[in-house]
Amino acid sequence: MSFAQRVPEYRARADQSLARWLPAAEVAPTRLHEALRYSVLGAGKRIRPLLSYATGEILGLEPSRCDAPAVAVELIHAYSLVHDDLPAMDDDDLRRGRPTTHVAYDEATALLVGDALQSLAFQILAEDEACLAGPALRMRMLAELAVASGSRGMVGGQALDLRAEGRALDQAEIERIYRLKTGRLIEAAIMLPVILAGELPLSGERALRAFATQIGLAFQIRDDLLDVEGETSVIGKPGGSDERNRKATLPAVVGLEATRLRADTVYADAISALDPLGDRAEPLRWLSEFIIRRDH
Amino acid sequence: MSFAQRVPEYRARADQSLARWLPAAEVAPTRLHEALRYSVLGAGKRIRPLLSYATGEILGLEPSRCDAPAVAVELIHAYSLVHDDLPAMDDDDLRRGRPTTHVAYDEATALLVGDALQSLAFQILAEDEACLAGPALRMRMLAELAVASGSRGMVGGQALDLRAEGRALDQAEIERIYRLKTGRLIEAAIMLPVILAGELPLSGERALRAFATQIGLAFQIRDDLLDVEGETSVIGKPGGSDERNRKATLPAVVGLEATRLRADTVYADAISALDPLGDRAEPLRWLSEFIIRRDH
Repeated sequence: MSFAQRVPEYRARADQSLARWLPAAEVAPTRLHEALRYSVLGAGKRIRPLLSYATGEILGLEPSRCDAPAVAVELIHAYSLVHDDLPAMDDDDLRRGRPTTHVAYDEATALLVGDALQSLAFQILAEDEACLAGPALRMRMLAELAVASGSRGMVGGQALDLRAEGRALDQAEIERIYRLKTGRLIEAAIMLPVILAGELPLSGERALRAFATQIGLAFQIRDDLLDVEGETSVIGKPGGSDERNRKATLPAVVGLEATRLRADTVYADAISALDPLGDRAEPLRWLSEFIIRRDH
Repeated sequence: MSFAQRVPEYRARADQSLARWLPAAEVAPTRLHEALRYSVLGAGKRIRPLLSYATGEILGLEPSRCDAPAVAVELIHAYSLVHDDLPAMDDDDLRRGRPTTHVAYDEATALLVGDALQSLAFQILAEDEACLAGPALRMRMLAELAVASGSRGMVGGQALDLRAEGRALDQAEIERIYRLKTGRLIEAAIMLPVILAGELPLSGERALRAFATQIGLAFQIRDDLLDVEGETSVIGKPGGSDERNRKATLPAVVGLEATRLRADTVYADAISALDPLGDRAEPLRWLSEFIIRRDH
C-alpha cells in the first residue's frame, strides 16, 4: 500500500487528535472554545501533519507517536492564519471557503483564538503521553517548535513580509521571507519526528533537514502561483489577493514563467535531498509531488 | 536584610534576563526585534518576576534558578498587554506612561510582537540551563505555563471579560473572570518555582497554591480600584478607562467602598494562607502588602 492510500487515514488521525485536544464547545468560556474549534476543525489540507506522519513512517515511528508533533505544528499554523486574516494584517474575509474567524465571530475573539491556539500547541507537546518521548527529547521538540514559530522563524518572516509590501525586493530577499514565514514551520513539521526518533544517523538527519528547507520554499512558491492562477471557488479564498495587498511575491518580481521554473527547480532539489534515504523516502516524495501539483 | 531591600536587585535581575533573551534590535527582522524590546524593556513593575523570586527564596532556590520562570511569566504578561491594548480590544494609546506598541509602531507589528513574545516564553523554559531543572520538572513548568496562559486560563478570562462588557454580572461572575484573566498567570509565577523546587512537602505546596489564587484576585481588585481612583500621570494610562470601555468591574457592581472591603478581605485570606510556612514566608507577605498598597 502506498502513502497516497494512507493519506485519508492520516488526515482523520490529525483531525481526531485536534478534536480531542481542543476544549469542547460546551466548556467555559464557550464562545471562545466554539471559535477555537471553528478555526481549526472541518477544513484544511493538513499538509503539515501529513509531513510529520510521512517522516515518522520513514523513521519507523508508530503513527500514535507522531500525533502530538503533527497537531502541535498544525495549531501554530492555524493560529497564524487566524491572525494573518485580521484587518490589521491581510484583511481577508474568506479562508478555506468559509468566513474567516474575525468575520464569523469578531476581531477581539479572533485575536484571542490565535493566542490560545499557540498556548495549546506547547501544552500538547508538554503533556502528550502517546509520543513516548522521554522528557529530554520532548524538551528539544518544544524548543524546535518555539524557535520555528518565533521572531527568528515564522513570525519573523511575517514581519519581513509586512515591511516588504509595496517595496522592490529582489528574488533572494523574497525567498528569504518565504523560508521564514512558511518554510520554517514546515521544517519543524519534519524535524519534530526526527527529534522524536532520537537515534537517527547524522546523514539521515541532514538529508531530512535539507529536504525540509527546500520543500518549505517550494510550498510557498506554489502558494503564490495559486494566488495568481487560482479561482476563488477552488483555492477557498479570493484569487489575486497578493496583488491587491501589494505583497512582494516571486511572480510579481520575476514573472509567472520564471516562478514556475523556480518552483520546479526547488522541488527537484527537495527530491534530490532525499536520495540518501533510498526507497524508504517514498512518503515524502509522494507528498512533495502533492504539494507542488496541488490546485488549492 | 529584608525582602524589600532586595527588590531593586531582583528587578534588575529580571530586566537583565529579559534583555538577554530578547533578540538584539540589530538582528533581523530589526523592526520587529526593536518593537519586542520596546514592548518589554524599560517599564513595568515586574511584579510577576518578584513573585517568582520571592517564592524561590522561601524554597531555598538560588535566584539564578528562578530567572527563567520569572521572565517566561513576564513575557506572557507583556504579550497579553500588547494584544489587550489593540484597537480591537481595549484600544489604549498609553501604557506604563508610554505610547502602546501599536501606536509606537503599527497594529500589524503589535500583533506579531505579542505572538513572538509568547513563543519566546516557551522557548526560554525549554532552553534555559541556569534553572538546573531536570527535563521532567521543566516539562511540568511548561505545561503549567501553557495551561495558565491558554483558553482555560488567562486568555479564557479575557474572553469572558469581553463578553461581559455592558452586561450585568454579579460579584461571583466578576471574580471568576478576575481569577482567570489576572489570577491564573500570577498563580503560575508562584507555582513555577514550586515545581522547580521539586521536593516540597504537600502542605507547603498547598499553602503556596492557596496564597497564589488569593493574591491574584487581590491584585486585579486593586487594579480596578486604581482605575477608578487613579490619575493618568501616576498609573501610566488614562484613569476611568474601564468605565469608558463598559467593563464589568467590581466597583461598578458593588460600589467603591464594598470593593475596598473586598480587597482587604482577599488580601487577608492570602496572608493567612501563608501561615503554615511561618517566618520563611516574609518575602511573599511583603510583596502582598506592596501589591495591595501600590498606587500604580
